[in-house]
Amino acid sequence: MIELRGKCVSDSILSDAKKKSGELRKKGIIPKIALVRVGEDSSDVAYEKSIIKIMDKTDIDVKQVVLDKNISKEDFKKEIIALNDDDSVNGILVFRPLPKQLDEKEIRRYISPKKDIDCFSEINMGRIFLSDEEVFYPCTPMGVMKIIEYYDIDLEGKNVVIVGRSLVVGKPLSMMLMDKNATVTVCHSRTKDLPSVCKKADIVIAAIGRGKMIDSSYIKKGSIVMDVGINFMDGKMVGDVDYDDVKDLCSMITPVPGGVGIVTTSCLAYNLLKMM
Amino acid sequence: MIELRGKCVSDSILSDAKKKSGELRKKGIIPKIALVRVGEDSSDVAYEKSIIKIMDKTDIDVKQVVLDKNISKEDFKKEIIALNDDDSVNGILVFRPLPKQLDEKEIRRYISPKKDIDCFSEINMGRIFLSDEEVFYPCTPMGVMKIIEYYDIDLEGKNVVIVGRSLVVGKPLSMMLMDKNATVTVCHSRTKDLPSVCKKADIVIAAIGRGKMIDSSYIKKGSIVMDVGINFMDGKMVGDVDYDDVKDLCSMITPVPGGVGIVTTSCLAYNLLKMM
Repeated sequence: MIELRGKCVSDSILSDAKKKSGELRKKGIIPKIALVRVGEDSSDVAYEKSIIKIMDKTDIDVKQVVLDKNISKEDFKKEIIALNDDDSVNGILVFRPLPKQLDEKEIRRYISPKKDIDCFSEINMGRIFLSDEEVFYPCTPMGVMKIIEYYDIDLEGKNVVIVGRSLVVGKPLSMMLMDKNATVTVCHSRTKDLPSVCKKADIVIAAIGRGKMIDSSYIKKGSIVMDVGINFMDGKMVGDVDYDDVKDLCSMITPVPGGVGIVTTSCLAYNLLKMM
Repeated sequence: MIELRGKCVSDSILSDAKKKSGELRKKGIIPKIALVRVGEDSSDVAYEKSIIKIMDKTDIDVKQVVLDKNISKEDFKKEIIALNDDDSVNGILVFRPLPKQLDEKEIRRYISPKKDIDCFSEINMGRIFLSDEEVFYPCTPMGVMKIIEYYDIDLEGKNVVIVGRSLVVGKPLSMMLMDKNATVTVCHSRTKDLPSVCKKADIVIAAIGRGKMIDSSYIKKGSIVMDVGINFMDGKMVGDVDYDDVKDLCSMITPVPGGVGIVTTSCLAYNLLKMM
């Protein structure tokens, strides 16, 4: 069984990013990401910290925009428009979910698609459908694709089952895999006899957000298992896959932690530099 | 075996549309669709004719815009922008495919999403992902969904296999079905052992564009078959499904002609009036 570790994938993305960043700086162009955090949610703060570390490694400047958790819709819009218009900022990441008073639907319409490096805008979503090269893919499904690419996993004609139909993972990932000639099935909480659907897959991608849900009863011998889940059980980080239960069954598996998650943040650096 | 005829579905959509159109006219609002045809392609002319008939039935005015097949990118853009800005026009349909000198990608970016009643724009594509209620769904997958709705076909947890991953049918339809809690698999020319994948489906939707390709070797007994294909063989219109070969096997089937196709054009009227 091969463990598909994310570290080397992430290192490769970051090394390319650092090179590109250096070349831009030589030309006097300073790549800069704006991180927009509303309130002091601990998981937002932790994610922010890990992004800052990654950006530091790749010589990308960070502009931290920290807003009051009670900020009004109008004031929030002004902040985003100011970042849209700020030529020194190349990408905007808004931490989600946002507080209730902020209307995500509206924000998707005014955030500039040119700076929308985590695919929040309607236009970027549309570009996933269109396989438009100017798209910014959302970072989590992109992390999955980067691992597949790095480990040279053949997708052509393969049966891929995605468990989870979320807007940030399942739905866009289905399109990205289809573009690589995989036969894609998207399952979810309403799928009947989920284990038997998963058992037919050459590749199972778990993105359902339930700790250790996918065990050996879901996995065909020799298949590849990719785990997008990040859950906490008894204070320990676990994926959506019961690693110990499936590890002797599958041919390859991404661990949690140390798998997809670690690549996701690097994809932000990739996206920031992509159109520069 | 029940034949899922499109006529009654279409009639029901058109009767609702005519009612709504009448109410708008009473308020002095005249619904109007602009049909943009470039050149004299015979299938465009035929489609145009059928749309005009439908719009006539539903008291929707038609503005025909017929452009020279050699029109430049710039002049074409001017025409579309003029329709975007024309308050008397509520919806714009551009016949596709367009001649090569016109850049479809660019048009997707400037056609107004508010008038884009056949889901050509990037923004409407994104709204399919987002399940945004302000979306205009593309008319062909919408026709499929309207038939499913009309005949009260239960999608909850059903295994639906779509054959064909096109931008106008397969891809958007997969999202629309997922939103109704179906478990959706999208197959295509690179899928391995397509018959056996289709044979596992409760519902097979054929949208691959190859006459009579789907025969009894693809169909599980008692399943539902929906045929989106329009092909011509020996001068006769046929679907992607070999109707005679599968009809005794499936529980329900849409005929060609007289199935999905007939509903598609009615969906244009539905979309035109949707946001009015």
